[in-house]
Order: sequence, then C-alpha cells, then structure tokens
Amino acid sequence: MNFSAFIFKQRSSIPKYIVVLSAASGGASLVAYADSKPADENPTRKKKVVVLGTGWGGTTFLRNLDSSQYDVQVISPRNYFAFTPLLPSVTCGTVEPRSIVEPIRRILEKKKGNIKFWEAECFKVDPKNKKLYCRSNIGTNLDGTGEFLVDYDYLVVAVGARSNTFNTPGVVEHCHFLKEVEDAQRIRRSVMDCFEQASLPNISDEERRRKLHFVIVGGGPTGVEFAAELHDFVSEDLSRLYPAIKDLVNISLIEAGEHILTMFDKRITEFAEHKFQRDGIDVKTGYKVVAVGPDSIKMQKSAVGEVQVPYGMAVWSTGIGTRPFISEFMKQIGQGSRRVLATDEWLRVPECEDVYAVGDCATINQRKVMEDVSAIFKVADKDNSGTLTIKEIQDVLDDICVRYPQVELYMKSKQMSDIRAFIADAQGDEKKESIELSIEEFKKALANVDSQVKFLPATAQVASQQGEYLARCFNKMKEAEEHPKGPVRIREPGRHRFRPFRYQHLGQFAPLGGEQTAAQLPGDWISIGQSSQWLWYSVYASKQVSWRTRMLVVTDWMRCFIFGRDSSCI
Amino acid sequence: MNFSAFIFKQRSSIPKYIVVLSAASGGASLVAYADSKPADENPTRKKKVVVLGTGWGGTTFLRNLDSSQYDVQVISPRNYFAFTPLLPSVTCGTVEPRSIVEPIRRILEKKKGNIKFWEAECFKVDPKNKKLYCRSNIGTNLDGTGEFLVDYDYLVVAVGARSNTFNTPGVVEHCHFLKEVEDAQRIRRSVMDCFEQASLPNISDEERRRKLHFVIVGGGPTGVEFAAELHDFVSEDLSRLYPAIKDLVNISLIEAGEHILTMFDKRITEFAEHKFQRDGIDVKTGYKVVAVGPDSIKMQKSAVGEVQVPYGMAVWSTGIGTRPFISEFMKQIGQGSRRVLATDEWLRVPECEDVYAVGDCATINQRKVMEDVSAIFKVADKDNSGTLTIKEIQDVLDDICVRYPQVELYMKSKQMSDIRAFIADAQGDEKKESIELSIEEFKKALANVDSQVKFLPATAQVASQQGEYLARCFNKMKEAEEHPKGPVRIREPGRHRFRPFRYQHLGQFAPLGGEQTAAQLPGDWISIGQSSQWLWYSVYASKQVSWRTRMLVVTDWMRCFIFGRDSSCI
Repeated sequence: MNFSAFIFKQRSSIPKYIVVLSAASGGASLVAYADSKPADENPTRKKKVVVLGTGWGGTTFLRNLDSSQYDVQVISPRNYFAFTPLLPSVTCGTVEPRSIVEPIRRILEKKKGNIKFWEAECFKVDPKNKKLYCRSNIGTNLDGTGEFLVDYDYLVVAVGARSNTFNTPGVVEHCHFLKEVEDAQRIRRSVMDCFEQASLPNISDEERRRKLHFVIVGGGPTGVEFAAELHDFVSEDLSRLYPAIKDLVNISLIEAGEHILTMFDKRITEFAEHKFQRDGIDVKTGYKVVAVGPDSIKMQKSAVGEVQVPYGMAVWSTGIGTRPFISEFMKQIGQGSRRVLATDEWLRVPECEDVYAVGDCATINQRKVMEDVSAIFKVADKDNSGTLTIKEIQDVLDDICVRYPQVELYMKSKQMSDIRAFIADAQGDEKKESIELSIEEFKKALANVDSQVKFLPATAQVASQQGEYLARCFNKMKEAEEHPKGPVRIREPGRHRFRPFRYQHLGQFAPLGGEQTAAQLPGDWISIGQSSQWLWYSVYASKQVSWRTRMLVVTDWMRCFIFGRDSSCI
Repeated sequence: MNFSAFIFKQRSSIPKYIVVLSAASGGASLVAYADSKPADENPTRKKKVVVLGTGWGGTTFLRNLDSSQYDVQVISPRNYFAFTPLLPSVTCGTVEPRSIVEPIRRILEKKKGNIKFWEAECFKVDPKNKKLYCRSNIGTNLDGTGEFLVDYDYLVVAVGARSNTFNTPGVVEHCHFLKEVEDAQRIRRSVMDCFEQASLPNISDEERRRKLHFVIVGGGPTGVEFAAELHDFVSEDLSRLYPAIKDLVNISLIEAGEHILTMFDKRITEFAEHKFQRDGIDVKTGYKVVAVGPDSIKMQKSAVGEVQVPYGMAVWSTGIGTRPFISEFMKQIGQGSRRVLATDEWLRVPECEDVYAVGDCATINQRKVMEDVSAIFKVADKDNSGTLTIKEIQDVLDDICVRYPQVELYMKSKQMSDIRAFIADAQGDEKKESIELSIEEFKKALANVDSQVKFLPATAQVASQQGEYLARCFNKMKEAEEHPKGPVRIREPGRHRFRPFRYQHLGQFAPLGGEQTAAQLPGDWISIGQSSQWLWYSVYASKQVSWRTRMLVVTDWMRCFIFGRDSSCI
C-alpha cells in the first residue's frame, strides 16, 4: 500500500470538518437531544469527524487517523472489528469466533486523542445540516426511544453491505448468510444439529440423507472456502464421531455461472473444480436457484429444466447488496436510480459536502476521459494554438495519468512505451518526431481509453486501502490546502489537494481444503498447493489488527491441528 | 476416590439389565416406534443400559463403565459434557466456553463397545414395562412428532437439577441463571451490553448507574465466584476501555443468610467478606429478594423493611430445584410428597426395579439405625441369648459401620476409640471388660447415632464419585452375585452384593478474585491466598476430562494473563 502523495479537492471555501462513522438501517420518525452544538460556533475548535461502521474501511481509517487533529466519534452496532476473511474458518471451528474479533475500544485506546464510540446505528443523514439521526440498538434514553442526534463536520460512511438474495423467495427465511461473526456461529451450530438429527433412531434413511445434504449457493471465494472447510470438518473430525452416518453426507456447491471462482485465473478454477470432484463435493454449475423452501431448494438449468433438491442446511453466498440505510441515503441525495452509492476518485460523495464513503457500501465512479476531453485539450494547449504538440501533451501527461488511471492502463495493455507510440497507434502511422494534433484527432486518439475503467472488487483489501488512504488525506488536510499535491485541475484553475485513491492489488487466496490453497498474486503469479497454504497462514496471521488476535488465531490453528475441531452443540 | 469393594443388592431373581441415561422435561402425549424389542427375547443378549444426562454423574459413569458388558445408550439434550466448576470463569471470558466442553461422542469413542448417543430428552419413564418415552429436541421423525421409545434393562437417571427460584416473581423473566454453558455466554454478552448502553450519549447519569449495577442473588460458591470474576473483569479490563463510566459500576451480592459462603469455615467466610468490602463489592446479608422487575429488585430485611434497588443485570444463584421430569417421575412412583428424588445407599430408586439415580437430581436416603435396631440386635445375637456381649457386637460392628456410616461418624465425633467406650458412654459408666446388653440398653446406646446422618452437597464432586461408584458396580455385577462383597444384610439372609456408596470429600475452593482463592481441604485444612490460587489452577487443570480441554483451559488462562479478557459483544 503505497501512497506517495494525497490529494483532496476543496469543495467549499470555508472548510468544515467533522467525521462521523456509523452504521446502517432504514427509519423514519426522528427524535432527539444530543451532543450537538451549532456547527462552527467556535472557529478554533477541532473539526468533528464521525465514522459510521467498524468494519475494514472504518477501522483502518481510525487506526491511521491522527486523532489529535479531530474530535472523532465512531458509531456502529458492533463494538468490535472482525477479521472477516477468517469467517469461513469459524463456521467449522478451525478458528474460534473470539480469535478474529478485536474490541473497537481497544483499537481506539491505542490512539492518542479522545475518540468516542457509540454502540448504535445511524438511520438517517441530514447532509444539509450535517446531522446524523442515530438509534442505540438497545432502545433506552431519557425519553425512552433510544434515539439521539450527532452532528459532524466530516462524515465517513463505512457501513458495509448486506448479502444479496436477488429477491429469491425463501432465502431470508431458510438460508444462512456468511457476513457476520454471528452468521458463522449459527452455521457451526446448524451443521452439528444436522449431524445430531441425522443420528436419531426414529428417522428413515431418506430423511438422514436430507439432513446431511449441505448446500452452498454461490461459487465465489467465500462459498468455495466454506465448502472446503465443511468437507475437512466432516472427513477429519465428524466421520470418526458419527461413523454410522458418515457415508450419507453430501456437500453441493451451486453456481449460476459456468465455473466456480471466476474471479481467479483459469488454472485455479480448474484445479478447484477437480479437487472438489475428487473430494466428493458436488459442484453444480449453470444452476440458478429460484426458490428455497424449508426442506428443499428449487433450481433451474436451461439444459435440464427445473429440479428440486432436499437439503438439511443451506448457506447463501452469492454476492453483496445495498443496505437499506444506504438506499435511503442515495434516494435523498439524488442517486436513487443507481444500484450502489457512488463516490468520486477522492472517495467523496459528490452530492453532499464533506461526506466520504469507503468499502463495500460504495463504489468509485471513475471520471471518463471522454467527458473531459475538450477541457483536457484546453489545459494542454498552453499557447492556445488550437493544436497540441507532443511536448504540450507530454507536459500534462503525468497529471492526466494520475487523474485518469485508465490512460496508463490503456497504454500498458497496448504495450506502448510513450506518448508518441500512443498517437501513432491512434493515427495508424509510424512514430513521428514532431506532430500537431487537432481537437478531433486528440479525441480520436483517446476514444478507446475509457474501456479500461475498472470497478474495484468488494473485498477487505479494497476497503482497508481506502480507509488508510482517507486517513492520510485527513492527516494532511491543512498542509495540502497550502501545498496541493494532486494533479492539475482540468475544469478549474489550480491543482487538486490530493492524488486520487489508487487501488494496489496485493493478490488473493482461495483455500480449497486439505491444506491446499490457491494463490493468485500480482503479475499473474499462480501458486497452488501446500506451500500456498503456508503463505496463507503467514499472510493472515500478519494481517491481524493486534498481537492479541494474531496469537489467538495462531494458537487456534495449533489447537485444531493437535486436537481437531470441537463438535459440541453450543 | 477409593472404593475397595462394591456391593449391590439383588432385587429380582431373574436379573434384567439395560441402562438408559436421558434428560428431563414434562410431557403427556406419547407416540412411537423404536429400537424396542421385547425384553429378554434372547437370554444371551447384552443387557441394555440407558443413561439419561451427560453431566458429571452420567459422564463419569460412562467413562468408567466396562461398555463391552452392556448395550449402552445415552440420551441427553446436550451432546457434550461441560466442566461446570469453570462456568463462572466463562461469564467474563477468563476461559472460553468451548474450552470447558468435551463432545460426549469423543468420550464414548474412547470406550470400547458400541455406545449410542441420542440428542433428545426423555419426558416419561414407564418403570413397569421398562420403557422410556423420548423426544428429540428437533422434532422430526417418520410421523412428524420427533418422539420415540427406548427400552432398558437398567436405567441410570443423571439429569441434574435446575435453578431454584423459590417461586419469586420475575426471576425467570429478568434474571440470568448460571447452570449451563449458554447461561454463562448470555451473562457475558449481557455485561458488555450494560457497559455499551451506559456509554451512550443520550442517557442520564442516574440511568448509567442503574445500567452498571450488577446484582448477584445468592452468596454461595457460584454467586461469590461470579462476583469476584466480574470485579476482576471490570477493574482489570473494562475500566481501561470505558474510562468515562468506570466509577459508576457497582456490584451487589445479596444473601438471605447472615453470611456468605456458609458452607465454608468461618475464617474463609470472614476473609471473603472483608476482601469484598475492600474491593467495593457491596455484600448485603440478611436480605431476602421478594420480587424482580425489569429495572429493579425488591428485597426485604427484617430490621430495614422493604427496599427497591434499580439494577442493570441480575444473576440468580440461590441453589437448585427439581426438574419437571423428575417431579413427574416421583409422583408416578409414589415419592410425590418428597422434595427430591430419593435413592438408597446403593443409588437405586427403591420403588422401581433397576432404576438408579446419581448427581443433583437425587439424594441418598441413608437408612436410620433406629429403624433397624431390633433386626440388628437379632443378627448380632448369634446365640439367641436375648443379650449381646461385647464380642457379639464386635463381630458385626464392621458390617454395621459399612451399612450405617453414621455409627462411625458418631464414634469419631465423640472421640471414642472402640465399642467399649461407646457402650460405657451410653451407660454413663467406666469402660468395663465384660458386659451384656439387653435390647433396651442396645437401643439406648444407639439412640443418638442417627443425628450424624448427613446429606451430600449438590456438587460435581459428589455426582462424579457416584457415577464412578455405579460404573464399578455395573462392571462387577456378575462377580458380585456369586461373591457378594457388601455388609451383612440385616433384615434378610446373606450379604449385600456391594458396599454402599460412600462419599469422600476432597475439599472445596472459593476463588475470590485478584488471584486470591480460599481452599478448604479435608481435615479442616484452610489455605487462603495466591498459593491456593495456584492449587486451584492445578486441580482444575488436572480434573479436566480430556487432554484437549486441559490444554485449552491452560492456554486460555495464559491468553487472559497476557492479553486480558475480550470485551466484544458477540
């Protein structure tokens, strides 16, 4: 995670600063009394930063923020940070739930400055008056409603997403999700219940088979890792303890696409599919789940038609959807027609002042080159000649590449070494030493660049880099106002305060069970096998937010290695 | 735990053997199909032993039973054994819940012989037909009710007890108990909720104080240990994380009697009361709780009258009551007027054939000497002279002392070295060399002996010794029928098969927090302080049922020592 400089666009001449972090839910009636004083009553007071949420985005922001500069409040219904990439391990007891959580107050304790935490959720933002309507999830206050008001100068929204059911009937009622620690605990309990139920003396073999049919919907990394964990749990631990029923166990992984793990390299996908086949995990690709009942799942495949499969437990892991709090907020600010909250490249929500959003609750709307092409031309054409020389383009190219990363990506994808090659390619010519481009020629040269605009995946890695980036911007806010470090502004004079957020992909793991892990690292470096499992162990241990959780996770792995996983129904 | 010999009374000439262990609940309608075949259809088949319950009694029985001799089935709604003495440590996270539980199937796996476990509860016994009506706590079977029938030759009831509310209104609705692992988890969550609620910005200081008032009702070992754990949790961990509200915390321990820990030596009671006073734990003795509301507890003290105290969380720990399943069973067998299920000294339920009960669900009804005094006289008077000589008494004394342990206790309490001193004391004389006792004189001599009959405490130690004793009896059942090893029968010819159960008290601990523990060991040996804390650590570690839980508990202590306790609300 390298950020050599940080740029922040100034949106109002009188800077107002308060950051508030809170977390989602819809809601209408509002009440309150509060901690709220009229904003800017005292110009020397510290700006209020409110952070909504204690997931990857919010926590990384808080850990990196220089909290002595701000008056920081954190609002979240969860008083802890959870290391979510280990959730699949929690479902089967390879790691204990408490080993992957760190109380947010412990993290805040380490920061100098007085950071306040409220275990509550924000249900409404009033961006005009810079106020947040919050509700403690306990519902107790002086007037009995549990609601209170918090005002902010800066708001950081980091409330995450929820599981997406695609409105499939029965999913909410009958399926487990795997987003929260509680979900993982429920799944663990549910797996054991299925085994105990299938062991009872009073049921038929058909019923036993149904109880022991574990269905995972969604062949993404989470679903695949859970399937692998469950298979290991059954084969390494439960088959010894439940010898009478071990042969009736069946694990199905249902994926609507043609393959599982499609975000990985083909070699990994193939390896995973073969490994699962060898392990007896039934990978059903091309099946779309259309309804989930209490005892059976209905799914469709164009070649096969509709089938109904009895099951004992189902885990739904098909991607993320927008939280009601975010949808509500989007409607309010005029993003109602979008599917997900959009920010600019500086993680700001463009429609409101001083509201930032990081992590799964938002997506960066990369500005297209073609929208700004005339303005870019104007900025580059310093002598107002109506044409651009190579020199003129070269002078602004660095700024352009920072502002529009797709330009660099496009040049890389076409293996162009410099701007001459770029223009030559656009004109279908050989490289020339001197050239003059008209606005039409310039537009033509840039016409395909925007095809390289990429959306970031909804991962912990993205959220945490965003949190860190935003904290560094906040830390250098004053400095950057005087000495802006961002690229040249295209449609206004001056420079941006900070460089826009740039995601650096550090690689991704897919644990496949049996001490086999697939790793895809930057530069298309692929590694599959036990060595990647050890890499996985060391990366996940090193990424822990505290020495405490690091030690807990490592000793959990050792405990599990020596004694196996616990099968008690608690 | 020494048992040199085991005696078992034969109750029917055709021995029938099946032991069933299950667990409590009332219930009426019955159904079934089952595993049930007509008893004794095959005389060479193994006898069926059914064990109800997987607590201390049931598990120790199973661990010590030679399961190759029997066809054993275990029925319990909990598929694990919990090391209950560490429950108070679980409430505050000193030890994790999973570290004190061991799946019952792991324990059974280690036994040779095929032991079956059903996660279900028995809701009715039919002792005449030796059948058990069971219900899986999931409710699924071929006809949809989840009920099934199990038959037994021997039944071991080890279902434990429930918390006793003494019918105090509001207790079930508003108080936590501390009997199960789930209770401890709920308490932990509840403590953290109180701290988070008291931290919210929208409440008054009075409300904060209420939220942070933790009330423990019952000054027995469990209540005292929980109060101590909670105090440590607050002072060592939470006060750092919740600096704004740490001074508002208040812990009250309410005891109806004049002192706490009355089952311990006075020195320990005094030390505990002083320590709690120094720690700021408010020990309220002489207060009887009369009602519990959602926000306040009403209590009475004769000198003070009625007071109402607001509270945030309350734990009720005032002793044990009878489970509905046991009450129902007692009515059925004619023990309806008793408060607790009675067994004889061989742990048999006298009213039914081949039903045994161990642990907290039952109590041993020690036969009184005075009920049998004429029969004893007759047995001792071998020459039918109508009088007893010292020699005649001495000949039966060992058997009498085994059958009626109160005789030995009485002699010890009066510091009598032999039977001559005993008789001299009864007659108010000097010791004489030769003497002849009439029946009236004999009765007079034994008149006060029964005052030494002692009821056993409802502890893990008693239950586990009973389970072990019963298993050894079962293991030597056949041998003991041919060569009975018990005392002479008083009202029938021959000897008892086994010696009656004899409890051997190994001592008791009272952890008082701050690495201070009080220990009361046999021989009135008292130790208080950090050395006893280390003794406590080593005894509790050594008493774990498996190397797995032993390692988990020890590493939990280490984790807690190094990193403190976790305060996440999960």
